[in-house]
Parts: sequence; C-alpha cells; structure tokens
Amino acid sequence: MNPPSPQDSHAHIHSEDSLKKLVNRLSRLEGHIRGIKTMVQENRPCPDVLIQVAAVRGGLDRVARIILDEHLSECITRAAAEGNIEEEIEALKTALDRFVV
Amino acid sequence: MNPPSPQDSHAHIHSEDSLKKLVNRLSRLEGHIRGIKTMVQENRPCPDVLIQVAAVRGGLDRVARIILDEHLSECITRAAAEGNIEEEIEALKTALDRFVV
Amino acid sequence: MNPPSPQDSHAHIHSEDSLKKLVNRLSRLEGHIRGIKTMVQENRPCPDVLIQVAAVRGGLDRVARIILDEHLSECITRAAAEGNIEEEIEALKTALDRFVV
Amino acid sequence: MNPPSPQDSHAHIHSEDSLKKLVNRLSRLEGHIRGIKTMVQENRPCPDVLIQVAAVRGGLDRVARIILDEHLSECITRAAAEGNIEEEIEALKTALDRFVV
Repeated sequence: MNPPSPQDSHAHIHSEDSLKKLVNRLSRLEGHIRGIKTMVQENRPCPDVLIQVAAVRGGLDRVARIILDEHLSECITRAAAEGNIEEEIEALKTALDRFVV
Repeated sequence: MNPPSPQDSHAHIHSEDSLKKLVNRLSRLEGHIRGIKTMVQENRPCPDVLIQVAAVRGGLDRVARIILDEHLSECITRAAAEGNIEEEIEALKTALDRFVV
Repeated sequence: MNPPSPQDSHAHIHSEDSLKKLVNRLSRLEGHIRGIKTMVQENRPCPDVLIQVAAVRGGLDRVARIILDEHLSECITRAAAEGNIEEEIEALKTALDRFVV
Repeated sequence: MNPPSPQDSHAHIHSEDSLKKLVNRLSRLEGHIRGIKTMVQENRPCPDVLIQVAAVRGGLDRVARIILDEHLSECITRAAAEGNIEEEIEALKTALDRFVV
C-alpha cells in the first residue's frame, strides 16, 4: 500500500538483481573513463584513445537500452492493467525523445 | 628524460593547457556517470536517467572530436614538414575508423 | 479484398493521412539523394556534399521515428485490448533492435 | 592554367573511376528508398521497414566516409605541396563538422 508518489508511478528498475547489474555496469564505465584520463595524461596515441572513447560510448548506449527496455515493459504492463493507453504511449515517446534520435 | 618511443611519434595532445582541459572534461564525465548511478539507485524515472546518459554521450563525442582535431592538425603539419603523405593519410583514416562511422 | 495475412496483424500505419505523409517524406528523400548525385557529378566541394548527406540521414531518422511511434501506439493499444503483454513487449523490443542502438 | 574557382580549389573526387562508383552507390540508395516507399504503401510490418531504413542510413554513412577520405587525402597532399597548413586543417575540420559529430 505505497502511497502514490510521482517517482513511484514511473519507477522503472524493478528487480534488485537488474538494478545491481545496471549499477555495476555504470561503475565499470566510470573506471573506463578514469583509464582514458590516464591514457591522455601519458600522451598515448590518438587512435588508441579514440577506440576506448568509442567503447565507453557503446557501453552507455547499452545502459540506455536496458533502461529503455525496462521502461517499455513497464508502460505496456501498466497499459494492460490500468488502460491508460494515451498516457503510456506518451511516456514511451518521451523516453525515446530523450535518447534515441 | 623519456627516451623516444613509438608512442612519441604519434603523441597528440601538445600543449599543457589543452591536455589539462581534456583531463578536466573527462573528470567531469566520470562524476556525471557517478551521478547517474545514484539516480538509478534512487529509482528515479526512466526519462530523467536517459537524458543524463545522453548528456554523457554528448560529452564523450566532444572529447573524441577534440582528440581527432589535435590528431589531424598534427598529421597535416607533419605531412607538410616531412612529406610522408601516404603515411599521414593512413594515420588519419585509422583515427576516423576508430570513432566516426 | 485482401485476405487476412500474418502481415496484417502487425500493420502499422493506420490512417490514410499519415501513410500519405510518410510516402511524401520518402519521395522527398529520394529526390534529395538524386540531388546529391548531381552534386558529386558536378564535382562540388566536399563539405557542401557532406552537409546534404547529413540532411538525408536526419530525414531518415525522422522517418524511422515516425514508424516507431506508430508501432508503439499500436503495441500498447493492443496490449490493453487483448492482454498479450509479453508478445507486445517483444514486438517493441524487436522494432528498437532494428533501428535504435 | 586553370583559372582558380572556388569549386576547383576544393574539388574532391579525383578519378573517373571513384566518381562513377560513388554515383552508383547513390543510385542504389535512391532505389532502396523507393523500395521502402513501396513497403510502407503495402503496409508491411514495422520492424521490416525499420531494418531497411537502417540499411539506407548505413549506406549513407559509407558514402559520407568515402567523400571524407577523398577530402582528407586531398587536404594532406595539398598541405605537403603548398604548405598552407592552417588552411588545410580548417578545411578538414569543416568537413568533419558537417557530418561527424
């Protein structure tokens, strides 16, 4: 019997397990950026640095996709349970606006 | 006191100043990812998290572009000074392969 | 007079009007590419050509987003009407796989 | 003794052969978009259409990269021959601005 709160109504990482995995993923990306910083300070060759920057970018895209997938599962489940079709369509479009194109 | 190394021949961040700026930029991105981790742990709404992930991605693209610009300046300058045209063309294409498309 | 087909179950551009607009948009992109071909044949400067290629790419992203939006509206509406939640979640993820990241 | 013209100074597709290949590539993309238009009119499933849109986008990125590669070869060659280093660096950065990030 949670009282409704703005956040709860759009909370999106449900299971403890997937939350922990996402946090681990973000921690690895944080460490990865720290590694790039070291490479820059050691004056490593440009293409070597760029390939690491591209790897972090790929990792971020993966994080975004995981969050988006959780969100769409949630929106569809809620639409089926509560029938607020228009509202859920807008919620998903908003999420896509934020990241996709 | 560094002995010359293969790396030196492609070192790419020349001035102390631009190196420091790049490192600062990377530190900010590192902190930004740490902030996203907190948002995920606090179960913040998906679109709010996604917009921050997109911001970090934009920041990484900016870092990549700065490195690429330093690299191309260097390649062109060296081609003009030493005339190894083919080698410099390949160096630049390699850098583009790493990040661009 | 079409007999029902597997395709119909996932048909996605519903109104005549939005279908016509999408087709017009694609026709303009087709003409845009034809224009780029002419630019290349007339040996126009590289940055001028690239800016047009980027414009077509932006137009294609817009087309993809419109199709994606129609698809997500449809998936959510169908989930609410028929309750096949898992199936609709998969349909949307598949669509995202095809274009997004 | 060509009189200088803005276009000549940045002409970028040198050989007849690579120009013809680029034009063929663009013609195929044009036909590809025409095919997507037909798919939309036949009301084909959204993921099938999206995969084709993504294919055209990939083809456009390839075209952009070919043009960029020609341009960078030219800029480096010209810098080595004429020594206008700053000018060539700017020319390449401009090209990257147009397409890359």
